[in-house]
Amino acid sequence: MIKVAVVGGTGYTGVELLRLLALHPEVELRAVTSRSEAGTQVSDLFPSLRGYVDLAFSEPDMAMLGGCDLVFFATPNGVAMTLAADLLARGVRLIDLAADFRLRDAAQWEQWYGVPHACPDLLAQAVYGLPEVNRGRIAEARLVANPGCYPTAVQLGLLPLVESARVDTETLIADCKSGVSGAGRGASVVTLLAEAGENFKAYGVAGHRHLPEIHQELSLAAGKPVGLTFVPHLTPMIRGIHATLYARSVQGAGEVQALFAERYADEPFVDVLPPGSHPETRSVKGANDCRIAVHALDDGHTLVILSVIDNLVKGAAGQAVQNMNIMFGYDERSGLRLPGLIP
Amino acid sequence: MIKVAVVGGTGYTGVELLRLLALHPEVELRAVTSRSEAGTQVSDLFPSLRGYVDLAFSEPDMAMLGGCDLVFFATPNGVAMTLAADLLARGVRLIDLAADFRLRDAAQWEQWYGVPHACPDLLAQAVYGLPEVNRGRIAEARLVANPGCYPTAVQLGLLPLVESARVDTETLIADCKSGVSGAGRGASVVTLLAEAGENFKAYGVAGHRHLPEIHQELSLAAGKPVGLTFVPHLTPMIRGIHATLYARSVQGAGEVQALFAERYADEPFVDVLPPGSHPETRSVKGANDCRIAVHALDDGHTLVILSVIDNLVKGAAGQAVQNMNIMFGYDERSGLRLPGLIP
Amino acid sequence: MIKVAVVGGTGYTGVELLRLLALHPEVELRAVTSRSEAGTQVSDLFPSLRGYVDLAFSEPDMAMLGGCDLVFFATPNGVAMTLAADLLARGVRLIDLAADFRLRDAAQWEQWYGVPHACPDLLAQAVYGLPEVNRGRIAEARLVANPGCYPTAVQLGLLPLVESARVDTETLIADCKSGVSGAGRGASVVTLLAEAGENFKAYGVAGHRHLPEIHQELSLAAGKPVGLTFVPHLTPMIRGIHATLYARSVQGAGEVQALFAERYADEPFVDVLPPGSHPETRSVKGANDCRIAVHALDDGHTLVILSVIDNLVKGAAGQAVQNMNIMFGYDERSGLRLPGLIP
Amino acid sequence: MIKVAVVGGTGYTGVELLRLLALHPEVELRAVTSRSEAGTQVSDLFPSLRGYVDLAFSEPDMAMLGGCDLVFFATPNGVAMTLAADLLARGVRLIDLAADFRLRDAAQWEQWYGVPHACPDLLAQAVYGLPEVNRGRIAEARLVANPGCYPTAVQLGLLPLVESARVDTETLIADCKSGVSGAGRGASVVTLLAEAGENFKAYGVAGHRHLPEIHQELSLAAGKPVGLTFVPHLTPMIRGIHATLYARSVQGAGEVQALFAERYADEPFVDVLPPGSHPETRSVKGANDCRIAVHALDDGHTLVILSVIDNLVKGAAGQAVQNMNIMFGYDERSGLRLPGLIP
Repeated sequence: MIKVAVVGGTGYTGVELLRLLALHPEVELRAVTSRSEAGTQVSDLFPSLRGYVDLAFSEPDMAMLGGCDLVFFATPNGVAMTLAADLLARGVRLIDLAADFRLRDAAQWEQWYGVPHACPDLLAQAVYGLPEVNRGRIAEARLVANPGCYPTAVQLGLLPLVESARVDTETLIADCKSGVSGAGRGASVVTLLAEAGENFKAYGVAGHRHLPEIHQELSLAAGKPVGLTFVPHLTPMIRGIHATLYARSVQGAGEVQALFAERYADEPFVDVLPPGSHPETRSVKGANDCRIAVHALDDGHTLVILSVIDNLVKGAAGQAVQNMNIMFGYDERSGLRLPGLIP
Repeated sequence: MIKVAVVGGTGYTGVELLRLLALHPEVELRAVTSRSEAGTQVSDLFPSLRGYVDLAFSEPDMAMLGGCDLVFFATPNGVAMTLAADLLARGVRLIDLAADFRLRDAAQWEQWYGVPHACPDLLAQAVYGLPEVNRGRIAEARLVANPGCYPTAVQLGLLPLVESARVDTETLIADCKSGVSGAGRGASVVTLLAEAGENFKAYGVAGHRHLPEIHQELSLAAGKPVGLTFVPHLTPMIRGIHATLYARSVQGAGEVQALFAERYADEPFVDVLPPGSHPETRSVKGANDCRIAVHALDDGHTLVILSVIDNLVKGAAGQAVQNMNIMFGYDERSGLRLPGLIP
Repeated sequence: MIKVAVVGGTGYTGVELLRLLALHPEVELRAVTSRSEAGTQVSDLFPSLRGYVDLAFSEPDMAMLGGCDLVFFATPNGVAMTLAADLLARGVRLIDLAADFRLRDAAQWEQWYGVPHACPDLLAQAVYGLPEVNRGRIAEARLVANPGCYPTAVQLGLLPLVESARVDTETLIADCKSGVSGAGRGASVVTLLAEAGENFKAYGVAGHRHLPEIHQELSLAAGKPVGLTFVPHLTPMIRGIHATLYARSVQGAGEVQALFAERYADEPFVDVLPPGSHPETRSVKGANDCRIAVHALDDGHTLVILSVIDNLVKGAAGQAVQNMNIMFGYDERSGLRLPGLIP
Repeated sequence: MIKVAVVGGTGYTGVELLRLLALHPEVELRAVTSRSEAGTQVSDLFPSLRGYVDLAFSEPDMAMLGGCDLVFFATPNGVAMTLAADLLARGVRLIDLAADFRLRDAAQWEQWYGVPHACPDLLAQAVYGLPEVNRGRIAEARLVANPGCYPTAVQLGLLPLVESARVDTETLIADCKSGVSGAGRGASVVTLLAEAGENFKAYGVAGHRHLPEIHQELSLAAGKPVGLTFVPHLTPMIRGIHATLYARSVQGAGEVQALFAERYADEPFVDVLPPGSHPETRSVKGANDCRIAVHALDDGHTLVILSVIDNLVKGAAGQAVQNMNIMFGYDERSGLRLPGLIP
């Protein structure tokens, strides 16, 4: 059993994290903090947790947080970086579900997030929490930067190709579609049901914060800078990301299915589908799986990879729990044996 | 041709009103005002109107508004009452799509809307704009209070029964379901797609602002105070209201179908369906129709009336245009010959 | 550990049952039968179950089924009754998720379901599987008739009132709204997304198969025949039932909250919300809970009860697992400790 | 006034065509045929048309159809080709909303549609009904092949680039997303709300019937065969297509905005948005417009074009009416002055 706290539990990644932690056999949930909701029962805000989480939101209290083994930050971007150094100094391990520690370059962080980074010196020790790439380092990490949702779906779909130099890494395209929960639980016009329902649109074509993150990690995998076009779209559903990935093979398209099958053979949460498949986002609704299908087109060089995740699970809270399991030596699937909810 | 302005055109009733006015052969749209969006092209906020509305939002200007034949208020509650006296004095006729002039009793208005009424003296001359009841008075009106969406669906479903004293008016029940556009275009959490999608709930069981409006009008129709239970629900769609109405017959349930057919025989926008029907809200999506089905149950005394409208059309902007047509002597269906959009 | 088979696992109650059984610590799933899909891997039809159910659909085989401790029927109405006698004779216990054993009166069954009952002699020994009423009898039962979805939501919302004779049982009204998964996974026009999406409608006002079931059970609870008006509606979402129940108090409306709280104090899956609440269907999405709110209106006699379930869980597969737990002496919540999926 | 009939009016393109024809000032609708629904009032099947279409579905009658000026085929693929020769011989002009006359090569037709073409000799005289390319020929045509929905969105988004040889035509990518109404009104499992709702998936990656159509027309525009990757996706909404198009500039990406603006300057239904825009499918819901945004990425060679239509309007029935207007010399916008329905 480890003592765990969640800082900022009022958003969608927060409530999803609480759902998963409530089912985890090794977790003792000590606190869920929220300045705005301090004093409110967690289950009053989220009645789905009645009977599962018997805590009130509390003000962040460094002494209390400092007594935990692990603190999750499910806060907006820019919060974790203000508290991380203090908590690390107290011996607490951290998983940040926001973007504060995802980029290695503080200048780049400032460019995309609009404020200076509060603790650039910690960036070097932060481990990018994609278990399929960094499992060993995550096990030792004090500070894990949980990947973004789009970056998770895109990287898992492209990694085998990029790592093996099977494709032209200058002309990668990631056409991505997300449910609206990715936009968070804040009041807004653009994600009202009356705006986002019965509607489909692209956004951020000129640039999206997840682009530098994907670029950084794929470039590491490629051993050189990659060229990636990333176009996100808003789709009228709540959960789910579908990445449609286009790449040009440089060695013929054959054997790509086998390449993916081998790359992910031992991965508990990456499921390579049989040839010809079209994964559905709902097959991973509420589940920590990433499902991938590989299509080599008849032209002999175009590869189309389809990659789906639940943005709140493998794209956020589930991956965070997976990272926790790795960090503390638990079965990596502990608390995450949950099939997708169909229909 | 009449000169028309819309005050407050940035919400859902506003944009729907603009869509309808753009198609109306007798309307010259002179201005669309919005303090918050002044200077913005209307079609930048609502690209669906590109090519149809070539105006920028403007600051409300009493001189300009005063030069119009008709001003619509598509503003939040409490705005029209602050400008109405001035505009009426300038000879302009007004249709308020909000609630400011719906209740005859200023004290009751204050109780439900939380602020004193700004011009209680005008309440007596305001005409409640339900054409099926007040057509003659609307034609003469200077100031029309356009009915609420729920009140329109409920009244049209109950009026024939209440007017004819065919039912026990003490035990009326209106179980109503609305799409989320009824909640407006303001940023909010509760009507986010991720909150209101894949979800159904009641709200306001203890009391909703549309209850006194329905109560007032049905009591007028009955000639005595009625007893009505009104439960609104939020349903995961954008447009549409479905009222399921329960009444106990005091004269046997027979001939109720004929009663409705006769009551609405000459109404251009009330469509009584054949016996045994179940009207769908989508049959009136984008249309000004109210479709009604009448069910007399086998127990011999229970009547179930099903009444559907598009909350933004017959429940708001369409009814306002219908009232305009009546006020200015146009064909009542002018600009409103629009079948529902199916699918 | 018990040996379990599912007959007819290709529908929505089937796949939901498989999801729950896959997580149950005491269940060894031996077979999932389907004539139409025999030979197909279950996880090919339902990729969400990849890694959780490693079986192919098989032809129903009485010898194999006869070797199980428990067989679930997740078949269409009319199938279980043709196999039940044989399986019971082999010592197998049965839970039928369809309607074959819900009505005590074979003539009434034939009237509503259109075919003669195949084994009317078994009706007397079938136990209606609503644990909140029949827990003791379920524990002993060989044959459990799992309740319908609407009946579960309506009964749990009305039972405290009917059992205590607190309301006029002649004028009960159940205005119910269901997601489309209740209509099943068969190809149809009426539940296409393009038909049922962005649409709301009533159906079956003149009579629905769940009415005699509700009537039978509430009359048993009341000790006399009740008078109930039941109007089901189709709402544009996948899962969830919301029952809005109207009753007239005969003893004053006070203390009704306490009545519900006491009635369900020891029930693991009935959650009575604080006064003034409006339960959301999504709070029970994927969960076996029924959430109830009680409203006593200001008129002093009208009670409005709001009751929500997931039609596929507490309204079908979850309740079936709950019944299984009771029948085999397991913790009633075993395998059902699953919070609702929000958002 | 022209005499018009619709063959096969029970599907989604049929009902949409009827909605538009009912509003058209120059059309006398003489018949709507359907073998399966013969005798049923059109407005019984589609209550939205009550008061607008006062006809019953009838059996196809060649004498009656032969007396019309124009017959629309809103039938499944393979029907129009069996009747076209006879009707043309009777002097009737035809618009086929299905695929029978879209491909010039009968062998290719057979390959993709699985049956031999019934009248390959007519293919040469059929005019592909994309007004933005073939306006002059449409005006003279006896037989118009109305384009598919995906092909319309893709071609309008790529034509300016392909015609001007501004891009590498070997590496075009069309990542397309469609609402489910594109799949038609037939009973099916895959487009049930409970299957297609809250879900996103690709389909037909290995090959889709719209690919040869797009390929044929873009190759004509390019003057040489193009290389196009086309991936369609099903998105959980009813109406709308969003095409995200990727092309590599061969002359630098500058001035592409102007290129599109000039190409479509005189087109009544193609709306090129200001730079930086992201068109929403809902902006064209129920409207005949195609809205396009052009993005030239910072890398200096990647172009991303976003193109949206309503699949049932500009992608089917609206474009058919536009073609009719051209064929009979009416104002091209007649009956099509309908802004999108927002929200």
